[in-house]
Amino acid sequence: MWSKAPVTLAFLQINRNRKLLMPEARYDVIGIGSAIVDILARTNDDFINAHGMVKGTMALCTAEQSKLIYDRMGKAVEISGGSAANSMAGIASLGGNPAFIGKVGKDHLGEVFAHDIKVGGVEFLGSLGTKPTATCHILVTPDGQRTMNTFLGACTEMGPEDIDEKKVADAHVLYIEGYQWDTPQAKAAIRKATKASKGAGRQVALSLSDPFVVERHRGDLLGLIKDEIDILFGNEDEIFRLYEAGDLATAVERLRGAKVLAVMTRGAKGAVVFDGQTTAAVDAAPVEKVVDTTGAGDLFAAGFLFGFTHGRPLLSCARIGSMAAAEVISHMGARPEVPLRDLLVKQGL
Amino acid sequence: MWSKAPVTLAFLQINRNRKLLMPEARYDVIGIGSAIVDILARTNDDFINAHGMVKGTMALCTAEQSKLIYDRMGKAVEISGGSAANSMAGIASLGGNPAFIGKVGKDHLGEVFAHDIKVGGVEFLGSLGTKPTATCHILVTPDGQRTMNTFLGACTEMGPEDIDEKKVADAHVLYIEGYQWDTPQAKAAIRKATKASKGAGRQVALSLSDPFVVERHRGDLLGLIKDEIDILFGNEDEIFRLYEAGDLATAVERLRGAKVLAVMTRGAKGAVVFDGQTTAAVDAAPVEKVVDTTGAGDLFAAGFLFGFTHGRPLLSCARIGSMAAAEVISHMGARPEVPLRDLLVKQGL
Repeated sequence: MWSKAPVTLAFLQINRNRKLLMPEARYDVIGIGSAIVDILARTNDDFINAHGMVKGTMALCTAEQSKLIYDRMGKAVEISGGSAANSMAGIASLGGNPAFIGKVGKDHLGEVFAHDIKVGGVEFLGSLGTKPTATCHILVTPDGQRTMNTFLGACTEMGPEDIDEKKVADAHVLYIEGYQWDTPQAKAAIRKATKASKGAGRQVALSLSDPFVVERHRGDLLGLIKDEIDILFGNEDEIFRLYEAGDLATAVERLRGAKVLAVMTRGAKGAVVFDGQTTAAVDAAPVEKVVDTTGAGDLFAAGFLFGFTHGRPLLSCARIGSMAAAEVISHMGARPEVPLRDLLVKQGL
Repeated sequence: MWSKAPVTLAFLQINRNRKLLMPEARYDVIGIGSAIVDILARTNDDFINAHGMVKGTMALCTAEQSKLIYDRMGKAVEISGGSAANSMAGIASLGGNPAFIGKVGKDHLGEVFAHDIKVGGVEFLGSLGTKPTATCHILVTPDGQRTMNTFLGACTEMGPEDIDEKKVADAHVLYIEGYQWDTPQAKAAIRKATKASKGAGRQVALSLSDPFVVERHRGDLLGLIKDEIDILFGNEDEIFRLYEAGDLATAVERLRGAKVLAVMTRGAKGAVVFDGQTTAAVDAAPVEKVVDTTGAGDLFAAGFLFGFTHGRPLLSCARIGSMAAAEVISHMGARPEVPLRDLLVKQGL
């Protein structure tokens, strides 16, 4: 078990000088996650229901199920995705210095993933698996909501041998996807990475990823959060399910025991940050039209962690998160279309 | 040489009953073109200039040049493209009944192309080549302009054996891309298709595609237009270059000699239709923000030909073209994101 960051009101107070208090690091954030290429198509609610999908969630698929969905779905767009990878791309777009660990196949989509992550300014510490590159068939309904069907492929081959401990130790924050709990070997990789990060006095962040991930791995996740996580990202549904809470007050009470800095996104209602003592809310950044919510949580985390690793006050971190999320939901695809750095400057954040 | 349609004022007058005057056909339009997957990335003017590209045009590339551009370009989106293929997808999206003839490779992008064209409602009469599927690396500048770099791959293998004369004869309109003049075997395929179409009393439409295509093949194109083309699509630059005209009056005078129905797009200035005697102009449909002009001409042609094969007056055809073009330039990628049929109904067209 590793020491946890002092998550008290002091957290907020020292915040302005956080950058100064942190030992130097090569990376702002290092993310571990599934290296996925998204295949997005617009659809309607009937298609979602007819195929037994649960709107707004992620389901795991076999290669055959994936093919079936592809054959039935409409004209698609292929864009690099993957939750943690999207977050790292967002941090790079904001001007930060992230790295990403993930596994792709020796195929066209693997090249696409590697290209996009590198040119986006993320150091790609990935390796090649023997299975095909993971794909996520994403159906976007007219309300902008996304429903995901993931074939993990080469991602299931990620294990401890993919973790370069020195590089993990050289990042201010280690960022982990909850999705990794669905691939058994990945857990060993995460344990190794967490140990390296904690050993270097760094902080570990976890994104809960999906309500069904929370349901499938609740016990595991609660233990991990209690023992090793410093910063927890999740939406309202995920955090409420994790702590079996029916309202914000109950959730906050249970988060207090977990001693984490919790960042809860609430869609159009904005976000709530809880530092163990105080809760503070920020509004969602205005969006002209919600086109596709894919990547909203990933980009919120990106903005927050960019601010966090650049010494910004927590509320400012959350505002940068809101801004990044607003950009990504205004178009198809889970990575920013314009340099977020420009928006940051333009909006005076 | 084949008889040409009566392109006189009568063309406009009989227009309302055109559908009734046309012999029945299985397809509204059958398109022949390059089967291409677009790889789009945003960039700035410096990148375009530094790589010796001419903004707004198409350049042919080797596989090696393509790879070099890909390595240097930013995060990309892969979306099915190809000029005539985009037009056929547009006609299907409007509720029409198009088919497409083109050649893809036996690879991932070939599957992507085939999937997108089929689910879009276009009958795909394509076949498999031995070379890789064609790609077009498209750079989109902040002004929304697109600059294209095409590796033709399997498209160069298309020849007369790919033309099913019965199917071509069973379409009201045969639609040909000017781009096909860059692949020598394709010309023989087009001659075969044109013969089949004309023999069945159908009409043949040609899109000039690109100013450099016009420069490279001016003589060939002028001969073809004079002898066999009934409907000519081009933008101002292309048509002016083709007829070596410095202004609209001169271009129109020279078009009169060609005896074609000419549809000239003029970007934000709208479009001009010339039936051999009368010119009529339509405004561009309003667009909130020009995101990416890729496919603007293709979708204008789609809208026009949908109207044309459904008995609409020529000005109404042009208005449907403007509407379809406005939709496609409001997002990344060259095919409609929403069913154009819905817009048609909504806008009372």
